Amino acid sequence: MTKTERFPLTLTDAVKHIIWKGDALTILDQRRLPREVKYIDCRTPEDVAAAIRDMALRGAPLIGCAAAYGMALAARSGSPARLRQAADLLRAARPTAVNLAHAIDLMLEKAKGRNGDLGTVLASAAEQYFRDDLLSNQTMAKLGAALLKKGSRVITYCNAGSLATAGLGTSIGVIRYAHHLGKVAHVYPCETRPYLQGSRLTLWELMQAKIPSTLITDNMAAHLMKTVGIDAVIVGSDRIAANADVCNKIGTYGLAILAKHHKVPFYVVAPSTTVDLRTPDGAGIPIEERSSDEVTRIGGKHIAPEGAVAHHFAFDVTPHGLVTAIITEKGVVRPVNGKNLKKVVS
Amino acid sequence: MTKTERFPLTLTDAVKHIIWKGDALTILDQRRLPREVKYIDCRTPEDVAAAIRDMALRGAPLIGCAAAYGMALAARSGSPARLRQAADLLRAARPTAVNLAHAIDLMLEKAKGRNGDLGTVLASAAEQYFRDDLLSNQTMAKLGAALLKKGSRVITYCNAGSLATAGLGTSIGVIRYAHHLGKVAHVYPCETRPYLQGSRLTLWELMQAKIPSTLITDNMAAHLMKTVGIDAVIVGSDRIAANADVCNKIGTYGLAILAKHHKVPFYVVAPSTTVDLRTPDGAGIPIEERSSDEVTRIGGKHIAPEGAVAHHFAFDVTPHGLVTAIITEKGVVRPVNGKNLKKVVS
Repeated sequence: MTKTERFPLTLTDAVKHIIWKGDALTILDQRRLPREVKYIDCRTPEDVAAAIRDMALRGAPLIGCAAAYGMALAARSGSPARLRQAADLLRAARPTAVNLAHAIDLMLEKAKGRNGDLGTVLASAAEQYFRDDLLSNQTMAKLGAALLKKGSRVITYCNAGSLATAGLGTSIGVIRYAHHLGKVAHVYPCETRPYLQGSRLTLWELMQAKIPSTLITDNMAAHLMKTVGIDAVIVGSDRIAANADVCNKIGTYGLAILAKHHKVPFYVVAPSTTVDLRTPDGAGIPIEERSSDEVTRIGGKHIAPEGAVAHHFAFDVTPHGLVTAIITEKGVVRPVNGKNLKKVVS
Repeated sequence: MTKTERFPLTLTDAVKHIIWKGDALTILDQRRLPREVKYIDCRTPEDVAAAIRDMALRGAPLIGCAAAYGMALAARSGSPARLRQAADLLRAARPTAVNLAHAIDLMLEKAKGRNGDLGTVLASAAEQYFRDDLLSNQTMAKLGAALLKKGSRVITYCNAGSLATAGLGTSIGVIRYAHHLGKVAHVYPCETRPYLQGSRLTLWELMQAKIPSTLITDNMAAHLMKTVGIDAVIVGSDRIAANADVCNKIGTYGLAILAKHHKVPFYVVAPSTTVDLRTPDGAGIPIEERSSDEVTRIGGKHIAPEGAVAHHFAFDVTPHGLVTAIITEKGVVRPVNGKNLKKVVS
């Protein structure tokens, strides 16, 4: 899509989720959604890193945007040493999503040879990074919608919507645009344990967009595929390796196996900043393990017995052979393999 | 196993979950576990039906036992009309588990031609039904454990333990006995949304039995099979059709597909009272749909947006082709098909 072509959907979501103020970054605390709309002011890169680490904001592309703004905050000091320190800090906030590292590297690149104007240059670069993400979502929405047939019933997973990106979303962007074209009849968001991004965030976005939606628990997907009939599974990604293996929220791999078993197309929607050509395959992607408490408690309330231990793998890897197509803003990768991926994103 | 042979595991669980008092049935309210141990006194078949419907007690074999006691309570009136009314009421409490209908039919059979001694006869028959379930669990535990190799890592689903049966459990019975023999090294119970029977009940039973266990969310099973390596998936059942299709808690079907994809044996453990030869195949089994609220709220707390609608299919059907073996107290069905099933249970 060229920059002059107008995107047919309004991108003004009911609630702004990230606001750049020049000397601070104000972010919507997504952990409190949908019950409470509360904001956190980040005045330093340390504040931004904490918000990323503690999941006040999440979603690989949005983490990239927040990190870019975090670098812009550090650059206000005018000190290259402070900028490098901020880069290390932000990079360590979460290990899996590669957009984070990508945004930081881009900001460091822009900072090279700058001195007095470091703050201005990086603020402008962060804003450009944000606009580029928004634009790439619009392009992916069009490319992805073209793959769907009229009246599709779609399963989506976790939240790869407006809240996970600069706006519109990756997988939800495709769903919203396809719904606008009459190609999506009904959406089944999986609730996505343990963080429940599907019930708290995706369903909230779908209801705001007035798209017919019915929430399901993650373990209902196979039953729906067999009984109701599902035409596509559409998900986002946190990192795509050079061989096109896809890392995404825990449960994505299982969903891909179920889709294959039922011959349902399995689509991954992600900007090219999610592709990490330096990681040869899925086995090389670090899988973040989070606190057991996030599984044994829901909303602060203990559900498991006292002393219970739980695994909390935050992500898993779907081998490229289970993916029907990867939709990036640079084009559609299909069939999905390393050669085709490189051709599209390089 | 003969009745004289002593079962090597203690069956005295820390908490009694169903107590027959002659004129009342006292049941443990499983909805409050593991945080609270509270009992409900059922003095009429209406009380028992309500406890089954509202899931104060659950698990197909235990529902059968409770229904038998509910019939014994009705029989205290000495009125065959009251008994028939109780039978209709109890039968309608939950539609999927066939053990319920089986127990009621058996009690009606025992009542035939009885008049003055109706109460005594049915009380005695209900107690026998309970003892038979316990004994059949011991037999299944031995038959099932024989199929496992030393040091197995096992995934189980929902709760098919002591709490779901007269005692010991079906799938958990196999796991406990196999652990006693050194054949189970580690258990991963799936939390089992939306009722969380895995985290609330199964993990509680496994911790009491001192079996090394790590809780997982339902969507982690595929990742564990790929990365940690799982040697068996062991589940219970609510109804098995004549062609050996297996109905069980929602999510079981998906888990069976994941097991097949990873070449992990998938075992179903259920007493012959779970087999329904009158239903030709899985498509004929009614799948209970429960309230949307049970998905959109956790522990009474809203998690989804105001006005959200959710599906709540309580069960699904696993085609017999995905099942490695069905373990009943009458023998092991393997390969799993209608012919072999009939041969074993008839």
